[in-house]
Amino acid sequence: MITFTGTKVFFMKKPLILVTNDDGITAPGIRTLISIMKEIGQVVVVAPDSPQSGTGHAITVNNTLFLEQVYIDKDEIKEFACSGTPVDCVKIAIDQIIKAKPDICVSGINHGSNSASNVIYSGTMSAAVEAGMSGIPALGFSLADFSWNADFEPIKKFVKQITEETLKNGLPEGVVLNVNFPKLAEKNIKGIKICRQAKATWVEKFDERTNPHGKKYYWLTGTFVNHDKGEDTDEWALANGYISVVPVQYDLTAYHAVQQLNTWDL
Amino acid sequence: MITFTGTKVFFMKKPLILVTNDDGITAPGIRTLISIMKEIGQVVVVAPDSPQSGTGHAITVNNTLFLEQVYIDKDEIKEFACSGTPVDCVKIAIDQIIKAKPDICVSGINHGSNSASNVIYSGTMSAAVEAGMSGIPALGFSLADFSWNADFEPIKKFVKQITEETLKNGLPEGVVLNVNFPKLAEKNIKGIKICRQAKATWVEKFDERTNPHGKKYYWLTGTFVNHDKGEDTDEWALANGYISVVPVQYDLTAYHAVQQLNTWDL
Repeated sequence: MITFTGTKVFFMKKPLILVTNDDGITAPGIRTLISIMKEIGQVVVVAPDSPQSGTGHAITVNNTLFLEQVYIDKDEIKEFACSGTPVDCVKIAIDQIIKAKPDICVSGINHGSNSASNVIYSGTMSAAVEAGMSGIPALGFSLADFSWNADFEPIKKFVKQITEETLKNGLPEGVVLNVNFPKLAEKNIKGIKICRQAKATWVEKFDERTNPHGKKYYWLTGTFVNHDKGEDTDEWALANGYISVVPVQYDLTAYHAVQQLNTWDL
Repeated sequence: MITFTGTKVFFMKKPLILVTNDDGITAPGIRTLISIMKEIGQVVVVAPDSPQSGTGHAITVNNTLFLEQVYIDKDEIKEFACSGTPVDCVKIAIDQIIKAKPDICVSGINHGSNSASNVIYSGTMSAAVEAGMSGIPALGFSLADFSWNADFEPIKKFVKQITEETLKNGLPEGVVLNVNFPKLAEKNIKGIKICRQAKATWVEKFDERTNPHGKKYYWLTGTFVNHDKGEDTDEWALANGYISVVPVQYDLTAYHAVQQLNTWDL
């Protein structure tokens, strides 16, 4: 399907694009992403049948999975709703639906930012990482607006541009992209910045309540705290009107720590 | 509680140790880990009330959490079973139980290896990563034996040694340790090796079945494939009788890719 000329990749026919997300197959974010991808290639959708935010890289090992072909846009593309996590969706898409590797996997568009350490909690980004681990170029897209009615119109052309550049250039070995968009009108978006992940994390505060039977229960809440003053981070880019693109790796080895650990008395 | 002298840390009183896992609070692996940690410091246990293998870095955002004090070993240590994921356990332990940061967090001992890319799927390791992200030195321990009746006896002295070395030396900023043990008699364990994460992943093969109502469903199965011939990997260490220690980072930025991405037409 593809030919290589130097480092560039030319598609002889339309690329096969796997689309997934973590907000569920009916979310406006994935519907927007599907509409953009249909302009670029042949689209197959395998996405969760229910919201899966915050599922990280969870997989379903102790339960069964259901897969249902669905017809949402009433057009020719193949869409499947899966009862599992976003990572399950990528795995089952490769093994049971496409029965091969797609040319690219795009995940999102997430309702809410996945910048900084959110990349680790994010089902959207974990789906992209899973595709990358299977040798598929992969991108996760997120808009810094948690609303179900978020306006994806201003970012459509950038999603298309970044996807097309990825298809053209390929991605470095072992890398997927975490793309986050600020919540801005198109004319106020200043451009695209290649960034590093900001050192910013959640500080939790659980909300303790008592149920009608007298038993205590908790809701997870928290405050996102950015300790990172760098101007090369995704948080800085988003706060300053830029789209952030962070190359994300899944070899988690802290190579810089190996030497120090080798001095230990082990 | 601690004083710093150069790079060494001396505890003036017993260190406070948070213990968690992903196999559930009654699993023999965590019971072994608790017994070892009681020799080192003051122990608080917050662990899942049910098996949570493969939950990765999932958190519970769309549901409530329950927390129940339990008395398993009938001694003085505080133990809590949590209805959430391993990452939830770490978060709720800090905010609701300890109400401070423990001196160290240990997770496991997992029934089954978390070497290579398994680190990303592992609830055990995600709990350690979560503690690291909160600024707590953290270790995940896993034994390459999935059996509930796995024999943890041969590895007890090594678990103690690695924990004590971590308390003594501290960990480099942004790093937690992924410690995996081969399934061997103590006399056959050759030693401890600092390693990198092997490039080895799962190739999925879903097992398709039909339920009594005629509906298809799937079980996730797969084969673990190691493409990595390096002798500095965790897979090599385990296959050759060594305990593997991989320093794991949670800044996922692929810094080596930034330069290349900056040549794109974005």
